[in-house]
Amino acid sequence: MQTGAEPADLADVRATNLAVVLRHVRAHAPCSRADIAASTGLNKATVSSLVADLIDRRLLRETGLTENRIGRPATMLVLDGGPYAAIGIEVAADQLTVVAVDLGGTELLTWRRAFTGHGGTGTRAVSAIAALANRATGRLAAQGRAVLGLTVGVPGLVDGAGTVRTSPGLGWRDLPLGADLRRALREPSFEVVIDNDANLAALAEHRQGPYAGTANLVHLTAGAGIGAGVIADGRLLRGGRGFAGEIGHLCLDPRGPACPCGRRGCLEALAGVPALIRRVLPDATQDGPVTDFAPEVERVRARARQGDRMVLEALTETGRHLGHGLAALANLVNPEVVLLGGYFVTLAPWLLPAAEGELAARTVAPEAGGARLAASALGPGAAAVGGAARALAMVDAGRLPSAPLAG
Amino acid sequence: MQTGAEPADLADVRATNLAVVLRHVRAHAPCSRADIAASTGLNKATVSSLVADLIDRRLLRETGLTENRIGRPATMLVLDGGPYAAIGIEVAADQLTVVAVDLGGTELLTWRRAFTGHGGTGTRAVSAIAALANRATGRLAAQGRAVLGLTVGVPGLVDGAGTVRTSPGLGWRDLPLGADLRRALREPSFEVVIDNDANLAALAEHRQGPYAGTANLVHLTAGAGIGAGVIADGRLLRGGRGFAGEIGHLCLDPRGPACPCGRRGCLEALAGVPALIRRVLPDATQDGPVTDFAPEVERVRARARQGDRMVLEALTETGRHLGHGLAALANLVNPEVVLLGGYFVTLAPWLLPAAEGELAARTVAPEAGGARLAASALGPGAAAVGGAARALAMVDAGRLPSAPLAG
Repeated sequence: MQTGAEPADLADVRATNLAVVLRHVRAHAPCSRADIAASTGLNKATVSSLVADLIDRRLLRETGLTENRIGRPATMLVLDGGPYAAIGIEVAADQLTVVAVDLGGTELLTWRRAFTGHGGTGTRAVSAIAALANRATGRLAAQGRAVLGLTVGVPGLVDGAGTVRTSPGLGWRDLPLGADLRRALREPSFEVVIDNDANLAALAEHRQGPYAGTANLVHLTAGAGIGAGVIADGRLLRGGRGFAGEIGHLCLDPRGPACPCGRRGCLEALAGVPALIRRVLPDATQDGPVTDFAPEVERVRARARQGDRMVLEALTETGRHLGHGLAALANLVNPEVVLLGGYFVTLAPWLLPAAEGELAARTVAPEAGGARLAASALGPGAAAVGGAARALAMVDAGRLPSAPLAG
Repeated sequence: MQTGAEPADLADVRATNLAVVLRHVRAHAPCSRADIAASTGLNKATVSSLVADLIDRRLLRETGLTENRIGRPATMLVLDGGPYAAIGIEVAADQLTVVAVDLGGTELLTWRRAFTGHGGTGTRAVSAIAALANRATGRLAAQGRAVLGLTVGVPGLVDGAGTVRTSPGLGWRDLPLGADLRRALREPSFEVVIDNDANLAALAEHRQGPYAGTANLVHLTAGAGIGAGVIADGRLLRGGRGFAGEIGHLCLDPRGPACPCGRRGCLEALAGVPALIRRVLPDATQDGPVTDFAPEVERVRARARQGDRMVLEALTETGRHLGHGLAALANLVNPEVVLLGGYFVTLAPWLLPAAEGELAARTVAPEAGGARLAASALGPGAAAVGGAARALAMVDAGRLPSAPLAG
């Protein structure tokens, strides 16, 4: 990839300013045209023209409310966006989650279904994902909403063409998921994008919840594996081929336990959810590998709450390994906050103290370079939320839907 | 830090477009106004007005040459920038390097002087750096050039206020270098900026040489310690407090050798230049730690060229540890190229094969995620080159000097 100069022209300026107004209303609604002009530095005539355009596109609407203030009463504006929806699907080794939101960010639906990603060529997986997407688009169409985009999050390395290069947790290799899914959905009119699940979860954290807007944040996924989505200086860190944030096979100890990837002492082998379950609940794996993590994680949590010493020790050690792995991230990327996601969310009370201690001890900068650890407010399914948010982010960035729907 | 919306207005558009024209001429000079219009998409009247402005500021000049082509001959433009200069200083544990360049990127001077950074409170170091800066500005003033900025690169964690929070290699802690240096230079009219040395070296690699323009690149410094400067998606990766790129104390082996930082098995302890010298040249450290690395590295290189088996084995092992450390970077940041800098440059022929093998084996993505390893074209002093380039980058980004000098 090469970076270069791009000229600014007036069409760009208008698109940029439409997005500026839209973002302002998202953050400050209800607000008047005069408020927008005052806050953005745009002149009032320009704001009026931009607002008219956004109302035509049904992205804003007037509420008819007036502010209680001196002078003429002003018409207040709020986000509309009801006619538009975006869909996100998270593919995990044990379940599929679909989320749809409207342009205002209001959740329209959240469905989960059991899924066994592992095994097979991926053909069955494509059918299952397409069936779920069809059910969601059908429901949204019945509500009179147009779908702006579908984004699918996968735990693995996804290239720019939507091919999953490798997903150890799902057992996939070079699966052209984007192309296969578009075909299964009969070449839909909306955009279908495949991305890494941790990247999408990080976008969700950046957009909503307690750390929204934090310029440097990390979301750590915890399912069959461990992944990181990194927001650096307000933008998703992707790297040359889009493979950034691969933390699961960071080597913590060259003499550590064997990892299914063939290496030794990987973060996943030491601190992953399957490793924790194997250690704490040996009976769970008697009939082969665990394929549904949720009930087993719930058992671990119940025993921790009862004060089971062996379980508490295992959780402390898991936290210590996590802190060790996160120190590499803190040293290299210097985040302001790292959010433990997936199945780590419910285990966080027992993981965090040891993880914080190890992180601080192994980071060169004082106070872990300012990196705080916390449980994500998004649980499993965070990538579905982020997938839906991705299409909204495109709108915020200025790629506005052009034609309003017939109501 | 929070990210937010910024409105585009016409003054911004003009500043942006001035910078677009300037960057175009930098890349394609000599070129005509018509060439610029064709390549940038700006209309010809706008280009003429922008070029007139840049000629007034003495950033461009007409060469009087005409292109050999059909139609009217065109006046060709080249960068001027002769009246302006930028200065970079690299502070290493064993030497200071100062570089000055003009706006066209032509090197005006490069001086090195021996320096013992370690020991003391930093007061002597500030005097030595100020003396070197004064000599350089004096020389440039005598040539009729105005200094646009002075940037000082330091191996350590530098905060946004120009305070060196910690530099193990120099033995500094919470040294307000920026403020002290401005005082020692009697509050100069130009900007004085302190930054991490690896960051500046990465900016230099991004701007010039064989990998210029590569959107995702890493420069690895190797002096008293090891540091990384990371360009991600065309921008320097800084992180929340500006501490990103700290790779020297990445733990490769929790049971590895003790590191002066108090931890075990750090990359520096296993693959740093001082560790290599201690291992290969035990006589060099008989009278205490080595304070001038250059002659010792030259001795290591000479013995490697003679085929000394012990030295070759030590270099292979150093390369292997480097590859191990760089795999963490490749997994987390996914660079397209990693450039070995500092004293690694001359040792690269012996380090690279083992480093490449280890990097590929430990990176999850195939082919190390596309990351190539190579020796930097910049040796020790890269941060001085990058420091000078930083002020030029500000001009390219649209912060143009306003008043031309009296010739």
